[in-house]
Amino acid sequence: MNLILLFESDFIDTKRVRLAGRRYEHIAQILKPQLGDQLCVGQANARIGTGRVVAHNRQSVELQVELKHNPPKALPLTLIVALPRPQVIKRTLLCASSLGIKKIIFLDFARVEKTFWQSSTLREDAIQASLVLGLEQAKDTVLPEVLLRKDFKGFVQGELPALIKGTLPLLAHPGSSNPCPKGVRQTVSLVIGPEGGLTEGEVKAFSVLGFQMIDLGPRILRVESVLPFAAGRLF
Amino acid sequence: MNLILLFESDFIDTKRVRLAGRRYEHIAQILKPQLGDQLCVGQANARIGTGRVVAHNRQSVELQVELKHNPPKALPLTLIVALPRPQVIKRTLLCASSLGIKKIIFLDFARVEKTFWQSSTLREDAIQASLVLGLEQAKDTVLPEVLLRKDFKGFVQGELPALIKGTLPLLAHPGSSNPCPKGVRQTVSLVIGPEGGLTEGEVKAFSVLGFQMIDLGPRILRVESVLPFAAGRLF
Repeated sequence: MNLILLFESDFIDTKRVRLAGRRYEHIAQILKPQLGDQLCVGQANARIGTGRVVAHNRQSVELQVELKHNPPKALPLTLIVALPRPQVIKRTLLCASSLGIKKIIFLDFARVEKTFWQSSTLREDAIQASLVLGLEQAKDTVLPEVLLRKDFKGFVQGELPALIKGTLPLLAHPGSSNPCPKGVRQTVSLVIGPEGGLTEGEVKAFSVLGFQMIDLGPRILRVESVLPFAAGRLF
Repeated sequence: MNLILLFESDFIDTKRVRLAGRRYEHIAQILKPQLGDQLCVGQANARIGTGRVVAHNRQSVELQVELKHNPPKALPLTLIVALPRPQVIKRTLLCASSLGIKKIIFLDFARVEKTFWQSSTLREDAIQASLVLGLEQAKDTVLPEVLLRKDFKGFVQGELPALIKGTLPLLAHPGSSNPCPKGVRQTVSLVIGPEGGLTEGEVKAFSVLGFQMIDLGPRILRVESVLPFAAGRLF
């Protein structure tokens, strides 16, 4: 937790927050500040600054907050990713959030196990918790938008054309002969398929929309490694 | 497990292996092959190919092995990383191994918690298990070398000068004004410091050896995100 993310409900007056629960425990057990010490804080979807410890007891801590700086720029990448296994959903969200990705779409593919959609990690509060961990790691405040799309055809034919307008649409496809472009100066829409790969029909559905197949190297990486690798390579 | 990694002790004759334990369970429960099906296998530090299922029972499976291809090329990067928290050691090893890093040095820094060196994740068998998971993920066979260096000064002054000879020595340093170089065509020696950062003396110890401080972006990433990000950016 390199930044303590604050929400409106934390404010007890315009410049003062009271924190209990997970954030309080992190502060008390890891940061162990003295009265007067300053911690790095940021307000959700707003600015970053400092929180001076003005009171603490065994259950909560109060910070006097000064928010001065804008959060870091978003990564210009929209992620369209096959819904992974439940234990990977959380890691994917945390990783994407920490990289500054602000739009994450979990999409169904033929080779996505349908039971994954029932995972409790997809509940709204669980998604938010994973995103917050990523922001706290990266010192960012802007919560990504997460969309769940269980209808592949409906999404790709209905919603996707407008979504990729003006962006560079790329489909990570192991074995493609096109290497991943570097030094890209526009927003990228990046599709990452399921573990078992895409069907021919799925590849075609993206191709007709102008998606370019790209290879991210000879190694098959976990999705939480592919994302930073692509972020490092593309921009 | 995109590749089943085989060791000499698995061979019951020159072209036949018998697998039990973890790999057997993965094959039986996830891959569920029929007799005659071919699985992707590779021999540790040797070639990659196929293993045809020739026998299986409730405890083991036998494969007829044909090894034809070389493993993917190593990533030309030597990693010198501050020993992270125990739960991160395993993820760091898996991640580095999956990226094709072949030399990983865990180094002590002033801000490394000394108890971390007692972690069971640093036992030889635990290290090997983490590395194997990375190779199985990435379809590689070449086990990285892992060195544990608890004496910062001894390592940096004694061993490091020879180690970085002919390489591009880089020190990831948040806030540095040098962006990370791209399209590097030589081997990189990359230092990643501890969570709390390097002391001035430590920075100087690397600087005098010619290490260039580089910035990997405005976000603080977990080590298992920094590694693929750097791998994507550098080469």
